[in-house]
Amino acid sequence: MIQVYENIRQCLTLAGARAKKGRRPTEADLGVVEDAAVVVEKGCVAWIGQTGSLPAQYAKAPRAPAQGAVWLPALVECHTHLVFAGSRALDYGQRCAGKTYQEIAQGGGGILSTMKATRTATPEELLIRAQTELAFFEAKGVRCLEIKSGYGLTLESEIRQLECIAALQKGTQIKLVPTFMPAHAVPPEFKGRADAFVEVICKEWLPAIAERKLATFFDAFVEEGYFSVQQTRRMASAARQLGFKIKLHVDQFTDQGGTALAVELGATSCDHLDSVSAKGVSAIAASETVAVLAPGASVFTGTPYPPARALIDAGAIVALTTDFNPGTCPSHNLPLMMTLACSQMKMTVAEAIVASTLNAAQALGEQASFGTIEVGRPFHVWSVEAETYHEIPYKFGD
Amino acid sequence: MIQVYENIRQCLTLAGARAKKGRRPTEADLGVVEDAAVVVEKGCVAWIGQTGSLPAQYAKAPRAPAQGAVWLPALVECHTHLVFAGSRALDYGQRCAGKTYQEIAQGGGGILSTMKATRTATPEELLIRAQTELAFFEAKGVRCLEIKSGYGLTLESEIRQLECIAALQKGTQIKLVPTFMPAHAVPPEFKGRADAFVEVICKEWLPAIAERKLATFFDAFVEEGYFSVQQTRRMASAARQLGFKIKLHVDQFTDQGGTALAVELGATSCDHLDSVSAKGVSAIAASETVAVLAPGASVFTGTPYPPARALIDAGAIVALTTDFNPGTCPSHNLPLMMTLACSQMKMTVAEAIVASTLNAAQALGEQASFGTIEVGRPFHVWSVEAETYHEIPYKFGD
Repeated sequence: MIQVYENIRQCLTLAGARAKKGRRPTEADLGVVEDAAVVVEKGCVAWIGQTGSLPAQYAKAPRAPAQGAVWLPALVECHTHLVFAGSRALDYGQRCAGKTYQEIAQGGGGILSTMKATRTATPEELLIRAQTELAFFEAKGVRCLEIKSGYGLTLESEIRQLECIAALQKGTQIKLVPTFMPAHAVPPEFKGRADAFVEVICKEWLPAIAERKLATFFDAFVEEGYFSVQQTRRMASAARQLGFKIKLHVDQFTDQGGTALAVELGATSCDHLDSVSAKGVSAIAASETVAVLAPGASVFTGTPYPPARALIDAGAIVALTTDFNPGTCPSHNLPLMMTLACSQMKMTVAEAIVASTLNAAQALGEQASFGTIEVGRPFHVWSVEAETYHEIPYKFGD
Repeated sequence: MIQVYENIRQCLTLAGARAKKGRRPTEADLGVVEDAAVVVEKGCVAWIGQTGSLPAQYAKAPRAPAQGAVWLPALVECHTHLVFAGSRALDYGQRCAGKTYQEIAQGGGGILSTMKATRTATPEELLIRAQTELAFFEAKGVRCLEIKSGYGLTLESEIRQLECIAALQKGTQIKLVPTFMPAHAVPPEFKGRADAFVEVICKEWLPAIAERKLATFFDAFVEEGYFSVQQTRRMASAARQLGFKIKLHVDQFTDQGGTALAVELGATSCDHLDSVSAKGVSAIAASETVAVLAPGASVFTGTPYPPARALIDAGAIVALTTDFNPGTCPSHNLPLMMTLACSQMKMTVAEAIVASTLNAAQALGEQASFGTIEVGRPFHVWSVEAETYHEIPYKFGD
């Protein structure tokens, strides 16, 4: 029942970051214990400190040396679109060759191609593909991961995506957090009738998903050509009444006031913020809503990075994500996002680590179980072969 | 002696790119054979074509199915500083926290810290470290790799670095290409006396390395505060007379006319070009000198990307590299550089593939042995689990 890990080169507890609720974390907030020992009892941390100070009561407990490793809280991936079928690799080839999104969509590519492939895939096909994608995240240190629906866009296929997440959960130790995202795009069946689609989501789809208990969160894409602030407010309110927690895709391509809306709605997180206004920054900085940033989508599509420095300096709680999806970020490498955060968005190493652990956990409402290594909390760690934790963003792309 | 590989999903021969000498390669130049078979005899390609067309003479030869895989020429990494000791991960942490290079150097970091660690490392320490780094490149599809000296900066320690490359070669199948780069920086012993250092390189160091046959190439860093065009011309001429081929680090931070100098000197490649002038672009476009670009250093240090589009459109032969080194690009992931090339430098997927294979081979004078899959040429392939070659830059960071 008891396991003692000794001689951990560095163990990052993040206790200080928890005390500050992940706001403007400093190096001190990482709570680095050098030559650490960790005692695990019944899946929870029972003791943590320097190896030389291990209490006598654990002298005879089974030991597992962890020499040479750096330990940090297991990574949390708080925003993915992991369940889908098809590929957009050929789209990427066309985009690099200078074609516009519109030209690619007219040629049969784009998000609608993913929708068609996802609608026609069998549950088995969806599950096998999702298992493959999930394994990549596991290899990169992730132990808690969010997955959104939104490539079905019919009630039946959205249910199939969410049931795939439930099936995936049965075969993995990774804690999965399911999000219902019917308002990812207006489906062809409702072309030019977004209001009617919103109505159907509120009156039929949300109750159907709630009844089946298939999702923790509701999410919508607040953007020109997708869903307006008013439409989103209507959907989110209906979702809240049915017990869903709220996430929103906001201010990605244009400032729609989505960040302020997310704060107004008490959203657990709002994501992207590439084009957030100063007003949006002020609103989220004064709230508990987590700002989830996706630098991988920026580097992959060649768009500007979100203003991480402005958000953190204002006092916002910032998390990082891959935004794993076939269109704008087909990467499972959350540590690479930490590198982009440091090198391109001017975040410090401490900020990037807190953003990928504790703050990402808060973006899922999972901060009681994930994001720190603390006595009395569940034991979820990522062990990295390194001399110092700085190597995690430093050695990039491995 | 004969081995037949069948049912290769796609095999990229790059025969068209060879015909065009790697200039403005198109998708057609990749020479994609769908459902391919390749016959290998005595280490060379004996036949290549569609599996269904395999000549009867190979009917009884041993078979190795390669179903599902995409084959391309093994990657060539044409610019690394792979032999060194120490770590710069803490420097990176300080840089992300806002410290300048100068402040980091004053605090004992920077290139001089790598120099000190490399000078004091034993040959065994250098070799073990280099083997570890090389294994990462092997895992990412590289089968030919250049390594520069230049972290010793005394004759004795430069020899030790080059001897490490020779020792490394004995234990690997990867073809290593050694480059002598004493003019990487002015060492502390010659502070303020760069001309005297150049004199010693020309009169003592170059002959010593030539006599020991430890390097194929000579390289120098043409940059303000490092080595001038005149100093470099003097060193490169001396090196050429001793049988060295020439590479140069040019126009990285400022335009020094280094690209034109490289062309004038008949250099095999010149590398970086982040700040190359229009005049430099014209000069290299009309030459056989390969322009080697390092987008990883740009993304990691937050500096502008080199002008790949202008170079290719003008007709230059462009190659890609990680520029693997502890200061500005501690990444071994050449496929990730292809993604940056496509997403950030607007290269096409075909251009990125040719730049990482055939053109990178030409940057090492190895284009007869590496960079294509062709009858009569040595068999060096990279086999990737994929539906289409577009996935290589598309699935980034894995």
